[in-house]
Amino acid sequence: MKKKKWRNLMNFLRVNLERLTCQFEENKDYQGLAGRALTSRLIFNEVPGNAHPLGKENKLIIAPGYLTGTAAPCTGRFSVGGKSPLTRGIKESNSGGVAGQKLARMGIDALVIEGMPEKKDALYVLHVAKSGPRLLKADELRGLGNNDTVARLTKTYGSKAGYMTIGQAGEMRLLTANLATTDPENRPTRGARRGGLGAVMGSKGLKAIVVDDEGCGEIRIKEKEQFAKYVKDAVKAIMANPLTGEALKAAGTSVMTALVNSVGALPTKNFRFGTFEGAEKLSGETLLDMTLKRGEKGKENKRCSNGCPIACSRWWLDERGERVGKRPEYEVIWSHGPNLLIDDPDAIVEMNELETDFGIDGMDTGMALAMLMEAGTVAWGDAKGCIEVIKEVSTGTPLGRIIGSGAEMTGRVFGVNRISCSKGQCLSGYDPRISKGMGVTYATSPMGSDNTSGFCFAQNCLSGEVPGDRPEGQAELSFNAQVETAAFDSVGLCGLVGFHVSEEFPNYIVGMTNLRAGTSFENLEELLQIGKDTLRTEFEFNRRSGISVSANRLPHFLCEEGVGEKKTKFDVPNVDLDGIWEALSSGD
Amino acid sequence: MKKKKWRNLMNFLRVNLERLTCQFEENKDYQGLAGRALTSRLIFNEVPGNAHPLGKENKLIIAPGYLTGTAAPCTGRFSVGGKSPLTRGIKESNSGGVAGQKLARMGIDALVIEGMPEKKDALYVLHVAKSGPRLLKADELRGLGNNDTVARLTKTYGSKAGYMTIGQAGEMRLLTANLATTDPENRPTRGARRGGLGAVMGSKGLKAIVVDDEGCGEIRIKEKEQFAKYVKDAVKAIMANPLTGEALKAAGTSVMTALVNSVGALPTKNFRFGTFEGAEKLSGETLLDMTLKRGEKGKENKRCSNGCPIACSRWWLDERGERVGKRPEYEVIWSHGPNLLIDDPDAIVEMNELETDFGIDGMDTGMALAMLMEAGTVAWGDAKGCIEVIKEVSTGTPLGRIIGSGAEMTGRVFGVNRISCSKGQCLSGYDPRISKGMGVTYATSPMGSDNTSGFCFAQNCLSGEVPGDRPEGQAELSFNAQVETAAFDSVGLCGLVGFHVSEEFPNYIVGMTNLRAGTSFENLEELLQIGKDTLRTEFEFNRRSGISVSANRLPHFLCEEGVGEKKTKFDVPNVDLDGIWEALSSGD
Repeated sequence: MKKKKWRNLMNFLRVNLERLTCQFEENKDYQGLAGRALTSRLIFNEVPGNAHPLGKENKLIIAPGYLTGTAAPCTGRFSVGGKSPLTRGIKESNSGGVAGQKLARMGIDALVIEGMPEKKDALYVLHVAKSGPRLLKADELRGLGNNDTVARLTKTYGSKAGYMTIGQAGEMRLLTANLATTDPENRPTRGARRGGLGAVMGSKGLKAIVVDDEGCGEIRIKEKEQFAKYVKDAVKAIMANPLTGEALKAAGTSVMTALVNSVGALPTKNFRFGTFEGAEKLSGETLLDMTLKRGEKGKENKRCSNGCPIACSRWWLDERGERVGKRPEYEVIWSHGPNLLIDDPDAIVEMNELETDFGIDGMDTGMALAMLMEAGTVAWGDAKGCIEVIKEVSTGTPLGRIIGSGAEMTGRVFGVNRISCSKGQCLSGYDPRISKGMGVTYATSPMGSDNTSGFCFAQNCLSGEVPGDRPEGQAELSFNAQVETAAFDSVGLCGLVGFHVSEEFPNYIVGMTNLRAGTSFENLEELLQIGKDTLRTEFEFNRRSGISVSANRLPHFLCEEGVGEKKTKFDVPNVDLDGIWEALSSGD
Repeated sequence: MKKKKWRNLMNFLRVNLERLTCQFEENKDYQGLAGRALTSRLIFNEVPGNAHPLGKENKLIIAPGYLTGTAAPCTGRFSVGGKSPLTRGIKESNSGGVAGQKLARMGIDALVIEGMPEKKDALYVLHVAKSGPRLLKADELRGLGNNDTVARLTKTYGSKAGYMTIGQAGEMRLLTANLATTDPENRPTRGARRGGLGAVMGSKGLKAIVVDDEGCGEIRIKEKEQFAKYVKDAVKAIMANPLTGEALKAAGTSVMTALVNSVGALPTKNFRFGTFEGAEKLSGETLLDMTLKRGEKGKENKRCSNGCPIACSRWWLDERGERVGKRPEYEVIWSHGPNLLIDDPDAIVEMNELETDFGIDGMDTGMALAMLMEAGTVAWGDAKGCIEVIKEVSTGTPLGRIIGSGAEMTGRVFGVNRISCSKGQCLSGYDPRISKGMGVTYATSPMGSDNTSGFCFAQNCLSGEVPGDRPEGQAELSFNAQVETAAFDSVGLCGLVGFHVSEEFPNYIVGMTNLRAGTSFENLEELLQIGKDTLRTEFEFNRRSGISVSANRLPHFLCEEGVGEKKTKFDVPNVDLDGIWEALSSGD
């Protein structure tokens, strides 16, 4: 991997749950890396390919991006890395929330969680503060959901700390267990959701990480004024862009429901159809209307972390006007809505809140419920039935454990042959036959199927730059998107923003990165090289773990069964799919 | 694949469950192939790599070996092939029983089951008789175990037909569901056990295949006298060999318990130890003593199919002297005994009988129970607890479905990090650290971990030809064993016999094969080439399915944790493991 000049030595905090030690480590081997570039490289170097994801050889690595914790807008994100129990390949799961920003402000470039307690049910809290890091017994938190866990910890550590926690699912080491993180209002609404890294945290006996940066001051930036100018320009660009400045501000990611439905790419009834009758009831506009009618004030937007001028999130209010949770993101709306033939937003909110509290990935859970519907165990459209099943996750019944193990496992246990997953992880809310670039991403991403790891829907179906229903050009489109994603996941930049807000925007990001991180990227192209190197590292790790090029396929039915009026199938040739990683593995 | 001169056109019976048609097809593309060589080649050519194993694209192929159905001794076996729902790679599962012999006598070289009924719960019986093949509705058999299924069908088709059936597990498409076959006493004690091919049969809505060869006569052999001479010599060689003629005749495969324990290779408590305190209670000698004491006659040996001079099987009698089932094979004894810290043979018989009736693979079920013990759901050594769990398979409770999905799925659902599987299938009863050749087979076989796909224990730990606790020479040993296995699986020859009964024995096999099949193999070496070609085909299919060389690994803990006094680890280098298939895939 290309080395860049770094500001000084890097600072890792290694926490060993076998020896119960916390040790700072100065390091110069990883200079010039941050966020996903850093987690993936550390996993590659320190975790054997045939390691069991829940074994002591696996590590959980948490790293802020280049800009996380600075005043740069929409860069509050951090990376969580490890070998995934769900995909059994490498995983970087990206999250908002305040804890990553606080880690960065404390000068911690990576938190490396390793080892495993000898006692199987030992449970700890890691407390990281100016006074030093320490591991504390946490038996009193056993069996609590994320909400109660944060509430209890807040009594001790206050509401200004940042929390990363696991719910019952993580303690049970369920394959889709996630790691929840608190937002600026100290609620665990955010998280590193996909790939089961909460189970890795649980396997290490770690219930929570408390990050308290009190007294640590701001991040030191050399040319403060120049940085502030970049920040100002970047905010301006974000707010001037119609998507980030208007659409997302108004409806958040739920704006996608109507858009995706309108082009026939809204996967309905487990990818049987591309449009959903009830889409209107789940559109961003409807959801916003309902929220306002139920008494929420217009300007009550919420952000996942401080410093985001968009603030794409909102509370959800029930019929009596009580705040009962968060307005779900599009992927959750899709996976629990059209996917299951459910058009009741209140039911979707209820499911999402349960999943968030128990700590499982909503997307994979939605698809796991679809598998139960395929098997006839729950009826299509039966929201109440779904809610009952989800509740079983927290009590760990066999059915709860199955669901918490994700869609592919549920489908396999129930003998279903229509399993919408690739490399163990469920597909997302963009039909890969209508947006074939997304299909290529689902098939080839080293993360397993994932919408956020190379988003092509906009160029496929909105701008029409690369028409989504044709196979041509999709591999290139997806490859470029995957490289960009790996780069902005290393910056800490929000994927909804990305690099294309304005023509000048990438220069602001590059400029701020250099000033913060001591790197000397000349332009976006050089920053993207970090993304490419990261992807190559991830691909090589997967190859070492038994997942190679030939695993980069979509489920057969998507290649055989047409969707929409034109009965469009997924027909990007295998040679195109293979080409992506073959090119990458042979160098650049 | 090398083509050999064939006696005439081959005869396939294609049965399509979507169109409900049965069609004979003369074919010359597969001349010179039989058994596993034929099933694997057909799967390779007719099933797409990303086919869902339970989808309509998958096929179930049943093919007798070259000598199956002739008077050649110990050659009654047939091959069942398909894409495995358990390993998700190619599968050939080999079985005794009389149905394969009858298929061969009817002149059917391969039964190709394809398609899938549109109605999800449709259930059929395929009846193949001289009068022609036909598909019949079989709703009255729904939910029956193998025993009742055969009993019911026998009322209609008589006790002289051969039956291949699935139990509840196959109907539920459970991943370890197997295909049971009847022995000469018309009991479904035999089967194509591993890899879930019963689920493939179930996914096609096929409950049973009845093969009635009445009126079809003997297999035509050109030089009858020469053939008869080979048969005589072969029987003599088998009976003169101390293993096949004495040990196996006396105690069957249960003779292995004491042998494997004596060299410290008996995997105990899920591979924590290499010896078991209770091994004596499960030794072949003890089991035989018990049987005789309980009233069985000394000479009441049983065979899996007619024409076997060994007859390695026996009834098992309960304390009251009633025949309650079959004496379990070594692998079942191991997986339910030492593996679970159970030393009660009656309990093991009870578990085995339930599994055989429901139609799930005993080995993977034993290891699945070990996973529950690892998770603390059932206590180590608790035979009663195990029996209760196994019973849930037939009723399809969530826990029953998990167990029926095999060890790896069970381990994953229950968050276990000590999962003794490779490529989705559980390891067998020979510790791969003490018999490293077996370890190489477990890791590299295209079938997923499997003792029968390349047996190295004898050379490793009995003859000491290639000492089992050293890494050197193991890859070569395993490769040769895998090639031989693929060859005798194509002949229909029993793996307990193999090619090494006597120096001249291979010549008898080659000679008989040529006389029966019209091939012109000059020597064993040429027959082995068929094995090599078959392995290459299987490896290529797996590669196409996303399983490549890098998946050929054992679980990490076996490489880290020593067993026995010398704390021996599995340390065959990855480059040796990779070398096997790299050499094969580059041709020879």
